[in-house]
Amino acid sequence: MTSPVSVGRELRLADLHPALTDPVMESAIFLNEVAARYPEAIPLAAGRPYDGFHDPAELTDLLVTYQRHLGEERGLSRAEITRQMFQYGRTAGHIHELVAQTLANDTGLRVAPESIVVLTGAQEGMLVTVRALAARPDDVILVPSPCYIGMLGAASLLGVPVVGIAEGPDGLTATDVVATARRVRAAGRRPRAVYVVPNFSNPSGHTMTRAERVALLAAAESEGLLIIEDDPYGFLADPAYREPPLKALDRSGVVIHIGTFAKTCFPGARVGYVVADQIVRGPDGSRSCLADQLALIRSMITVNTSSLAQAVIGGMLVRSGCRLDTANAERIRFYRANLATLLEGLEQQFGPERRRGVLSWNVPAGGFFVVLTVPFVADERLLTYCADRYGVLWTPMSYFYPDGGGGHQLRLSCSALAPDQIREGVRRLAQMVREQIIGPDVSAGGAPYRDPARRSGL
Amino acid sequence: MTSPVSVGRELRLADLHPALTDPVMESAIFLNEVAARYPEAIPLAAGRPYDGFHDPAELTDLLVTYQRHLGEERGLSRAEITRQMFQYGRTAGHIHELVAQTLANDTGLRVAPESIVVLTGAQEGMLVTVRALAARPDDVILVPSPCYIGMLGAASLLGVPVVGIAEGPDGLTATDVVATARRVRAAGRRPRAVYVVPNFSNPSGHTMTRAERVALLAAAESEGLLIIEDDPYGFLADPAYREPPLKALDRSGVVIHIGTFAKTCFPGARVGYVVADQIVRGPDGSRSCLADQLALIRSMITVNTSSLAQAVIGGMLVRSGCRLDTANAERIRFYRANLATLLEGLEQQFGPERRRGVLSWNVPAGGFFVVLTVPFVADERLLTYCADRYGVLWTPMSYFYPDGGGGHQLRLSCSALAPDQIREGVRRLAQMVREQIIGPDVSAGGAPYRDPARRSGL
Repeated sequence: MTSPVSVGRELRLADLHPALTDPVMESAIFLNEVAARYPEAIPLAAGRPYDGFHDPAELTDLLVTYQRHLGEERGLSRAEITRQMFQYGRTAGHIHELVAQTLANDTGLRVAPESIVVLTGAQEGMLVTVRALAARPDDVILVPSPCYIGMLGAASLLGVPVVGIAEGPDGLTATDVVATARRVRAAGRRPRAVYVVPNFSNPSGHTMTRAERVALLAAAESEGLLIIEDDPYGFLADPAYREPPLKALDRSGVVIHIGTFAKTCFPGARVGYVVADQIVRGPDGSRSCLADQLALIRSMITVNTSSLAQAVIGGMLVRSGCRLDTANAERIRFYRANLATLLEGLEQQFGPERRRGVLSWNVPAGGFFVVLTVPFVADERLLTYCADRYGVLWTPMSYFYPDGGGGHQLRLSCSALAPDQIREGVRRLAQMVREQIIGPDVSAGGAPYRDPARRSGL
Repeated sequence: MTSPVSVGRELRLADLHPALTDPVMESAIFLNEVAARYPEAIPLAAGRPYDGFHDPAELTDLLVTYQRHLGEERGLSRAEITRQMFQYGRTAGHIHELVAQTLANDTGLRVAPESIVVLTGAQEGMLVTVRALAARPDDVILVPSPCYIGMLGAASLLGVPVVGIAEGPDGLTATDVVATARRVRAAGRRPRAVYVVPNFSNPSGHTMTRAERVALLAAAESEGLLIIEDDPYGFLADPAYREPPLKALDRSGVVIHIGTFAKTCFPGARVGYVVADQIVRGPDGSRSCLADQLALIRSMITVNTSSLAQAVIGGMLVRSGCRLDTANAERIRFYRANLATLLEGLEQQFGPERRRGVLSWNVPAGGFFVVLTVPFVADERLLTYCADRYGVLWTPMSYFYPDGGGGHQLRLSCSALAPDQIREGVRRLAQMVREQIIGPDVSAGGAPYRDPARRSGL
């Protein structure tokens, strides 16, 4: 006798948490749906790393490398290694010393390993940090506008209000941060922290200069703000031209630094970390590290970072001698070349239009993203049309603006693609853009593209 | 030139989120601290699985088993396997079909794989479920009292109020659930769901009879409540005597079922799941599955469950033919024998006192925990004393009561220990209990125990 397949009762979306109808959250569904419906479209929307760096056979080697490290270098017994691989473990993770060494070697940031919490990706880092800092209903987090969607989503889930600060060509300026903090305070609310991606920001592409970093630190100190520094891309900068993280320049201890191995190792592992060396004083005078408080919060979210994921990332760090710069030399070259290919493609396709001021794009110093500004509305409707008609995907920039904006901008990504795909993607994009500006351009490549998976159904 | 080690500024605990000073959260710190200070004490507090079932060499085999399954049985290409192992993946996970098959084989619960969200342990399952359901400030979740700490912590982090329902000898009764839901509603608040651990509840040890399950389902339906069924221990019941999950008896679709591989496979993986087949209707009449909404929430918490962790658990499911009952036969025997050893030890040490009504304990049908009720206060102070003086750890039951209570109860766990350790742990515990009742009992075993790690410092 088999029971029937279970079918649940009907609920109303309006009875579920409002974050579920936040445009930020809905945008993620929409992008996934479009990508699934047009599998043959070139994903200039995908911010994931390039698959060519990944080899499944390596995973078992890395597991073994880490276990050997535990035994031979850390002196753990076989029983202790077993426990570390299989059991609930230290809430703040067990690769914190390797992470601290890597930060010191590659970025010059020297922190006590105990101030590091290893988490399930940078996303959990944002969640625990916002949760710790936003204590009262009047607490707000300041964010750049445009802002990384993961930060907006974490705040939305927790019901924490964000206040956007418009980024100009120089990114988030210290002047604007000060002005916004004062305005928020004047309105009776408490600005707790300002969120920033200092290197190759997603989506704006901006990288802060040394002077901008120093000025932001001074602004945060003067306004009593903490800085949530999110640095997923810094390790992919050319080491010769890399600015230190804000945290390494931070003389007043205001920076909480979030990192991840998603781009330098691989995202499926889900390993990130937060450096939080602030001292927390209890009402009884007790002192703890903010990292301990964040670990406590994570104990009620994920309990631990997967021991297997930590072991594989730990294996990568051990194998590289805690020098990701060396291990990543090929990735660094690859992504820089891809960005150059994307920028060249844009110049080749749109050079005349750019010179006439019809459209424009930024020229980031590195990272995965370029923002293209066009003289028409680039929304979900156009994205669907573009996927169907021209076989290329991109991301509407409006998703990234907490207070509206970006309606005429497209985010283009070059990280997941081979150079030929980037060139072809830009060529397809150019057809769509020309059609929007001047009508269908049949001379440029014959009949418009149609997705093969859908063509058969016509 | 090396920069100095970073030191953060001072913050006030009172300025951080109130969950950090919730007694539930502080209890976790305290228990960890005591366990760390007394490493030689026998941990009758530890609810983790027994390490004897874990072999690090197995992990690489499981990774390979799963990858072979993807290639040979699912027909994935090498590139697709690489993507699944390394990249961001399907938000709801990629072992959902294996999980669905295992639930069907072992518990009789048949669900569509698309209604399963694979998450970072059952803990993330509780978090996303509570987040989805608690939409308004007046929404509350009903919980048994005593209640599993992870559920209380998740609600606390999200600022969602819980209302405790006292468990009697028959666990959480339908009558009490109905009465509480009506009382909550009369007070102008909205009871959204009732949380329950139907098998070998942590901490009460209660297992619901078939009649109790059916009655609870009817109560939930009549009161418009959902049921959050958390079932970490059901797979460890003797299959011949196991009741079906509430979800398998659920004719009205009110149950959201949370499961985990922490006890059947291993906790370090951090793989759990939620079955949420309720239909969510949007204001425009659109229909989605609650699982999709939970996946959306998780996309802002952890993004994905680690691909490595899913692969290893997937490998275990593949290897067992999606029959954990068969794979776990030895574990099932072991834990049942351990519980018998703990209960025998209590009878041996405390039989006379029990018969005189001085103290008592429950006799669970299975699971990891027994609750001992004593005629003195069993608090953190006594736990520290007991660890130091008698070398045995237990858990104060007061941690589990959301509205106070449990001051005279100890939770004893037998899952992580070998039988000899359980017997010795109970012997040490008995010395402490006798001392509390009638003063030090020097005849029972000579001088009281002192922790060797501390003795040297005397």
